[in-house]
Amino acid sequence: MAVLFLSTAARAQVFREAFAHALPDVAFHIGEAPDPLRVRWIVTWNAPDDLATRYPNLRLIFSIGAGVDQFDLGLIPAHVGVVRMLEPGIGAQMGEYATLATLAMHRDLPRYLARQQVAEWAPGENLPASRRRVGVMGLGQLGTLVIDRLRPFGFDLAGYSRSTRAIDGVSCFTDLASFLARTDILICLLPLTMQTRGILDAALFANLPRGARLVHLGRGAQLVAADLIAALDQGQLSAAMLDVTDPEPLPADHPLWRHPSVILTPHIASQTSAAEGAAHVIAGVSADLAGRPVAGLIDRWRGY
Amino acid sequence: MAVLFLSTAARAQVFREAFAHALPDVAFHIGEAPDPLRVRWIVTWNAPDDLATRYPNLRLIFSIGAGVDQFDLGLIPAHVGVVRMLEPGIGAQMGEYATLATLAMHRDLPRYLARQQVAEWAPGENLPASRRRVGVMGLGQLGTLVIDRLRPFGFDLAGYSRSTRAIDGVSCFTDLASFLARTDILICLLPLTMQTRGILDAALFANLPRGARLVHLGRGAQLVAADLIAALDQGQLSAAMLDVTDPEPLPADHPLWRHPSVILTPHIASQTSAAEGAAHVIAGVSADLAGRPVAGLIDRWRGY
Repeated sequence: MAVLFLSTAARAQVFREAFAHALPDVAFHIGEAPDPLRVRWIVTWNAPDDLATRYPNLRLIFSIGAGVDQFDLGLIPAHVGVVRMLEPGIGAQMGEYATLATLAMHRDLPRYLARQQVAEWAPGENLPASRRRVGVMGLGQLGTLVIDRLRPFGFDLAGYSRSTRAIDGVSCFTDLASFLARTDILICLLPLTMQTRGILDAALFANLPRGARLVHLGRGAQLVAADLIAALDQGQLSAAMLDVTDPEPLPADHPLWRHPSVILTPHIASQTSAAEGAAHVIAGVSADLAGRPVAGLIDRWRGY
Repeated sequence: MAVLFLSTAARAQVFREAFAHALPDVAFHIGEAPDPLRVRWIVTWNAPDDLATRYPNLRLIFSIGAGVDQFDLGLIPAHVGVVRMLEPGIGAQMGEYATLATLAMHRDLPRYLARQQVAEWAPGENLPASRRRVGVMGLGQLGTLVIDRLRPFGFDLAGYSRSTRAIDGVSCFTDLASFLARTDILICLLPLTMQTRGILDAALFANLPRGARLVHLGRGAQLVAADLIAALDQGQLSAAMLDVTDPEPLPADHPLWRHPSVILTPHIASQTSAAEGAAHVIAGVSADLAGRPVAGLIDRWRGY
């Protein structure tokens, strides 16, 4: 029985040592496996195209980072389980970044940065957090953690998800239009699926109150960049903070880089720690060996 | 018995209505008093120079904003009480700004902003909050509130004050050098006094670990701007976020405006709401009339 590891050399070293210590009877191969028939588990960001034929005894494919949308699920046989990365650092970092971005939008940081560029001292008026309606799209593990981080500031909080949810002190919506109509700062934490591709478009922005702000922490392909720029230029949106783009890296001539109302960071909201990631994969392999449920196994039909 | 109000017309309107409702027997004068001998209370940002001779029956002078350092205490007779502005919004806004600034320093926002300027996609590595040592200078009402807001993120928290304090989960120092030696992100919330004027200078920066970051929310005159710029240019500090400068407004040709490692906002961290401010002053006047202690009365010897 073997694990095949297909990610960076630095991570490979951490995983190899962790596996040697925790599961010494499991062979650990980096880059390629001498006997593909023995490969039961693959750890990777991108799934190999010949997965189905080359590794007939594959049981689980583990994503090395947060999200599984990079996999073409049509190329992964139905009997192979797909496992999301779960590690506590991902949530903690996302909570930090979402709080930073929400406060930056709430306190008009893009406007002050633009004024700093021209050395203009121009204090604006602060709005109490209780009068700022913040809305989180996506109420999974990350969404609920982000809500917990924002709660102490006293924002008027709401959440949107496809299935009915109840979260203390938060108005939960399943109707997108009603959710958008009451949202001054929209935080996107949705997974990328067929349903969410291109969801942040002109029609969605038009449903927000005029002057709303966007924090995008989902996936670049969920945002129609031209529609965002048009909404900003028309005043329908007043600012945005983006950590994801399409494509990544964003080409240097892309207009998002230079829009004065946009803060853009290079997909750093949340990074997986190699040590924590190895612990998660080892727990998954151990559970599989023992016939127990594997944490992070996705619903192949929903796609997350 | 009369109140003399010496601030903006918009605030005056709010105060006048609040006083008429709460204390109809107290005369409320805006700008000047017909009979200075009847003035018992003054609400103002700057104390009039002729205070001592013109208003011999003055009992209390209320600051209209946070802080009392704008008053020349030597010109205010010793029997006149000086009252700080206390209103819940000041703390809430300071908590928002301090969290925004601390997370911006923790997550390298100035570096990402500089890279955005040149359209460079260059992800760095995140440090867990548990490995970031945050230190708050000034453990009064604002300092302890800021610590409460930062606590959920898991930073390694410490505080510095002149008198011994005990705060749950926070290392409290009275020795400045020991406090600085363990502080990666320094948050200044000190009041401006003779002891704190110019305290943020080259000698203090040299006591911080190399590459430390500064969040300055005290008063502009506490910072030696030339020393901050030198420390940033030499790498002793790696970034700063400043809400206060000396002077204010900061002249357009001041080098702080354009330093790539500095985020500068125009003294907007915390603004006093007129309605909440009026409620605080009315409570103070009512307490004085009833012979009860006045909330916010400062210690004239300490200066805050």
